[in-house]
Amino acid sequence: MPDLELFFNPKSIAVVGASRTPGKIGYSILENLKITFKGKLYPINPQATEILGLNAYPSVLSVPEPIDLAVIATPAETVKNIVIECIKKKIKAAIIISSGFSEIGEKERELELKNISKGKIRIIGPNCVGIYQKGMDMLFFPRERLKRPADGFISHITQSGAVGSTLLDVIASEGVGIAKFVSIGNKVDVDEIELLDFLEKDVATRAIALYIETINRGKEFVDITKRVVKKKPIVVLKAGKTSKGQEAVLSHTGALAGPAEIYSAAFRQAGIIEAKNTEEMFDYSKALANQPPLADNRIAIVTDGGGYGILATDAAIQTGLELPQLSDSTIKTLKSFLPPHAIAKNPVDLTGDATTERYQQTLEAVFKDKNVSGVVIICLMQVPTITDGIIDVLRDCKMYGKPFVVCATGGSWVQERARKLEGWGVPVYDMPERAVKAMAALRDYGQILKRK
Amino acid sequence: MPDLELFFNPKSIAVVGASRTPGKIGYSILENLKITFKGKLYPINPQATEILGLNAYPSVLSVPEPIDLAVIATPAETVKNIVIECIKKKIKAAIIISSGFSEIGEKERELELKNISKGKIRIIGPNCVGIYQKGMDMLFFPRERLKRPADGFISHITQSGAVGSTLLDVIASEGVGIAKFVSIGNKVDVDEIELLDFLEKDVATRAIALYIETINRGKEFVDITKRVVKKKPIVVLKAGKTSKGQEAVLSHTGALAGPAEIYSAAFRQAGIIEAKNTEEMFDYSKALANQPPLADNRIAIVTDGGGYGILATDAAIQTGLELPQLSDSTIKTLKSFLPPHAIAKNPVDLTGDATTERYQQTLEAVFKDKNVSGVVIICLMQVPTITDGIIDVLRDCKMYGKPFVVCATGGSWVQERARKLEGWGVPVYDMPERAVKAMAALRDYGQILKRK
Repeated sequence: MPDLELFFNPKSIAVVGASRTPGKIGYSILENLKITFKGKLYPINPQATEILGLNAYPSVLSVPEPIDLAVIATPAETVKNIVIECIKKKIKAAIIISSGFSEIGEKERELELKNISKGKIRIIGPNCVGIYQKGMDMLFFPRERLKRPADGFISHITQSGAVGSTLLDVIASEGVGIAKFVSIGNKVDVDEIELLDFLEKDVATRAIALYIETINRGKEFVDITKRVVKKKPIVVLKAGKTSKGQEAVLSHTGALAGPAEIYSAAFRQAGIIEAKNTEEMFDYSKALANQPPLADNRIAIVTDGGGYGILATDAAIQTGLELPQLSDSTIKTLKSFLPPHAIAKNPVDLTGDATTERYQQTLEAVFKDKNVSGVVIICLMQVPTITDGIIDVLRDCKMYGKPFVVCATGGSWVQERARKLEGWGVPVYDMPERAVKAMAALRDYGQILKRK
Repeated sequence: MPDLELFFNPKSIAVVGASRTPGKIGYSILENLKITFKGKLYPINPQATEILGLNAYPSVLSVPEPIDLAVIATPAETVKNIVIECIKKKIKAAIIISSGFSEIGEKERELELKNISKGKIRIIGPNCVGIYQKGMDMLFFPRERLKRPADGFISHITQSGAVGSTLLDVIASEGVGIAKFVSIGNKVDVDEIELLDFLEKDVATRAIALYIETINRGKEFVDITKRVVKKKPIVVLKAGKTSKGQEAVLSHTGALAGPAEIYSAAFRQAGIIEAKNTEEMFDYSKALANQPPLADNRIAIVTDGGGYGILATDAAIQTGLELPQLSDSTIKTLKSFLPPHAIAKNPVDLTGDATTERYQQTLEAVFKDKNVSGVVIICLMQVPTITDGIIDVLRDCKMYGKPFVVCATGGSWVQERARKLEGWGVPVYDMPERAVKAMAALRDYGQILKRK
């Protein structure tokens, strides 16, 4: 069997169930692929000869050229025969968007699909929203309603197309980028384990966010992830942690979820960072994808709002981070240019009249301090003394080689600047506690890398 | 002494330290008051005869008419004499924006201010950003950089002007409204206790969010809040919970913060809901200000994304909420119109092809179920089958008289609709766990109201 490459680098795609009716799933998939995909695109629809300006065919078998990938979005009862045709056409990979399988109790139908495809064609799905990456958008959500993220370094594997797609919309609005997004649905064939193995070698992927309801191959999962995390951090959000939540998993996927403790223990053993909620999953992932790990527990906090410094300090201590004393030479340097009312110790408070230049000078001194392994930078960008030069100052902190995260709280003015920073690989959070927890995730990954 | 009314309903305001230079604090304060305040406005500046088209005076003493409120934004060393002039002018209330008092170690200067003002003039501040409410904006942040919230039902008392103002910016961008915002700074005179007492009687205020670093009168705080919470819920975020955080409080305010446990115990005793972080403070407040309390633990979850249903269920169980079985008649009703692939039990999953009408019918049945005391509604607004009619459907859930919160995850499309809902008093959250925790706060307040 070929590896998963054909799913991500096909030269040609057939959209089976392509529709001429705007609003239909089969129309949206074709439309979004047409906008993004540079290879050959074949709409398959027995009732049409042309859709969206492309030649349509009644079946994959009537397409004269070879097809690398089939995207199937037809009623569940038709999928089996379509897959048989795909096998006949020697298509090696299919993504089945269609729902109506084990998630609604149709276990027989899913088993049949598994049996006919096994060893003949690789399948992602059914009951999924497929793949999103640079040059390949098959999400059926309208682009004006659900924004697509830019190209980036996080890859996201999700067992829920709805959770995954709407989170893409959130991170797109934050300016965070995506390398590969894969909705695995009922995972009749390709599962999270094989994808983790694949993403380990994917040059675009620097961190992996995983939303999972059930893991069917526990031992393989731990074995593979133990190896992957040596190269790339994995953040997991496990849904179905409570027994009532596990019942909901059964309703949703038709699969049994085990007790939360077993999962959490396996994640710890594998060196996976567990997110406690949806927010943490991408909060951690965007830091891990863009920043080096934190070498130990020692961070500095630099702020221009005293209250923020206190909140961040509380959060840091609560997550096991430490705020070491700054070295004497750093304090001396800081005192040489800071006004007397600023606080030249950790947390450093530049106070409300802080200028962009004061940030630049302070950050240089603090980053270079040997007592400091990473910096949480809090900046109230609304004050008039902070110019847009702050974006360059924060971006350029990369040169110090130590991890840093930024907290900037506010509305559209701040969000616009945060998006620019995200584009430069600087993770920005709207609340101090979120920024600090992301730094703690960088510490956790540092510890995972040190394991034997 | 008059009560605090003059701070909030002055007929005339003098801005001492009004500046002619755009970008200066004394300019911004005057400019923003000029835009919002309908009474008489007197710029005080010895070097000017006119600022922003208003007659300027060298001192409050040279203003021919009476002045209700002075807003002072001059260098710290000049404040004492200005306050003495205010007393001579029989001004009964002053807000001192100026910093440079105990927060930078100038305890003597602050004590002097306390002594000269005591019994003669009421003071908010120093070291604060003052008051923001309908008809009175004295925040010195430029309006294009820091958005102002609409008129609403949350009042916010904050010991940190920076934290408070930037959170105003966040909630303004969410479409959440504010009744009164008061930055209390070093609280040389008026403190959170007196303000809580005042807000108890304020008709515009339905919930109070309090950010606090130190409480100086512990017993009075508990006594007053015990009474206030019988009428209005109070959410508190206590900064300086760790010993390192307490050190930072000392640097910031010059005041000592006690151990977190003592504060938390006092909050529980008083019936105050404690937010663990910045995000929770307004997440809870906006639910409490707009929704009735949850009578018991029993909630239903209605979703069109199965994964979201599982995440919300987990979060509900983890916060001590229960998902009771729906009554037989509700299930019968749901099954009469739901498609077979939808899940007609709690959590109710309308699945990805849910329509606005399906939500309306389902919500009616679920809200009317006697087993259900409140509803967490999750809605993927990006799917084409959800029309803008969903806004009316969600808004009208108010008629059932039970509390509800909404989770809608996404970018600009969703955020625009969420803002409309917030305008109707429907609390909307971007993540399922945030929505559920807000519902748990409504449960907590219900339990507080039941106490003897």
